Amino acid sequence: MDYYSKHISKLIEEFSKLPGIGSKSAQRLAFHVLNMTQEQVDNLAGTIINAKKNVKYCKCCFTLTDEDMCPICKSDKRDHSVIMVVESTRDLAAYEKTGRYNGVYHVLHGAISPTLGIGPNDIKLKELIERLRGDVKEVIISTNSSVEGEATALYISKLIKPSGIKVSRIASGVPVGGDLEYIDEITLLRALEGRTDM
Amino acid sequence: MDYYSKHISKLIEEFSKLPGIGSKSAQRLAFHVLNMTQEQVDNLAGTIINAKKNVKYCKCCFTLTDEDMCPICKSDKRDHSVIMVVESTRDLAAYEKTGRYNGVYHVLHGAISPTLGIGPNDIKLKELIERLRGDVKEVIISTNSSVEGEATALYISKLIKPSGIKVSRIASGVPVGGDLEYIDEITLLRALEGRTDM
Repeated sequence: MDYYSKHISKLIEEFSKLPGIGSKSAQRLAFHVLNMTQEQVDNLAGTIINAKKNVKYCKCCFTLTDEDMCPICKSDKRDHSVIMVVESTRDLAAYEKTGRYNGVYHVLHGAISPTLGIGPNDIKLKELIERLRGDVKEVIISTNSSVEGEATALYISKLIKPSGIKVSRIASGVPVGGDLEYIDEITLLRALEGRTDM
Repeated sequence: MDYYSKHISKLIEEFSKLPGIGSKSAQRLAFHVLNMTQEQVDNLAGTIINAKKNVKYCKCCFTLTDEDMCPICKSDKRDHSVIMVVESTRDLAAYEKTGRYNGVYHVLHGAISPTLGIGPNDIKLKELIERLRGDVKEVIISTNSSVEGEATALYISKLIKPSGIKVSRIASGVPVGGDLEYIDEITLLRALEGRTDM
């Protein structure tokens, strides 16, 4: 990076820290930003800062949202007795896009992974158990079908089953090893319809 | 984008304006940023703002740099009588990486393109002609081998030749239609060595 001046090198370095951005892409982004108008640059930087400042966890389902409680948890049109457990807000958005799920969610923010040192206490699992004290009829586990996602599903199922609440897992239909958010809506719906007891 | 809150949607939107970033990548970047520490976010935003504020054109060769004059133009170890004309600072960096070019540069910031409405006055061509009043022996035209780059090379060559200064063009060796910055250093060096008079 000696070929660029200090500020340009630093900008390229910052961009290359982002996921999926290699060294060439980072250079391309950096020079694109330098060619943007001052207003566009201020918008970009301001949006990043504001998002970080204003986005927080919903106090009920822990999705990322601007308010204390997210619109789904606040809605009285949703069935609050059915909770779908997902790994991330992006997975929640993937199911919302189908427009056919009427229950609420619980966002774990990760999955149990002994190799990465992520245990049950590192995800929002305690908070899920707290919610089950209310009037909950079913917990649908929609973690990814990766090794970590499956392990997390099994762990949660074993934890909840003694309470008598129905626990289900979205059907295989979601390809094994795939990330939930990249799957088409039809497959997501089929997986929801074909869910099996655990 | 209704599936995300206002601040998250805006962040995704800003990222998807960047080149090479599609809607899925923008979502991935947005959630990555939201999961970064406050310090990391401040660094990213600060670096963007600082780069835009501090990076300017070198008053001699018009490359993007932090100072009034770039290190190459300031250096007395470089041969200031040989000027390589490139389209962008990234192309300059590509030749600097070879470590074997000892002349100086002139960055046009674009190429002549009638279809995009970019004429000779929209790139730093006038500024190049100004520089030729000094002690210049050779101008090496290293614009991309795209249609626009070739047209620009021809235009510059016709403009300079009457003055008696030698004008050369980097050899074909650079694949036609390719972007200079993505080519390996060996090919770049071969193109430099095999340059022909225009």
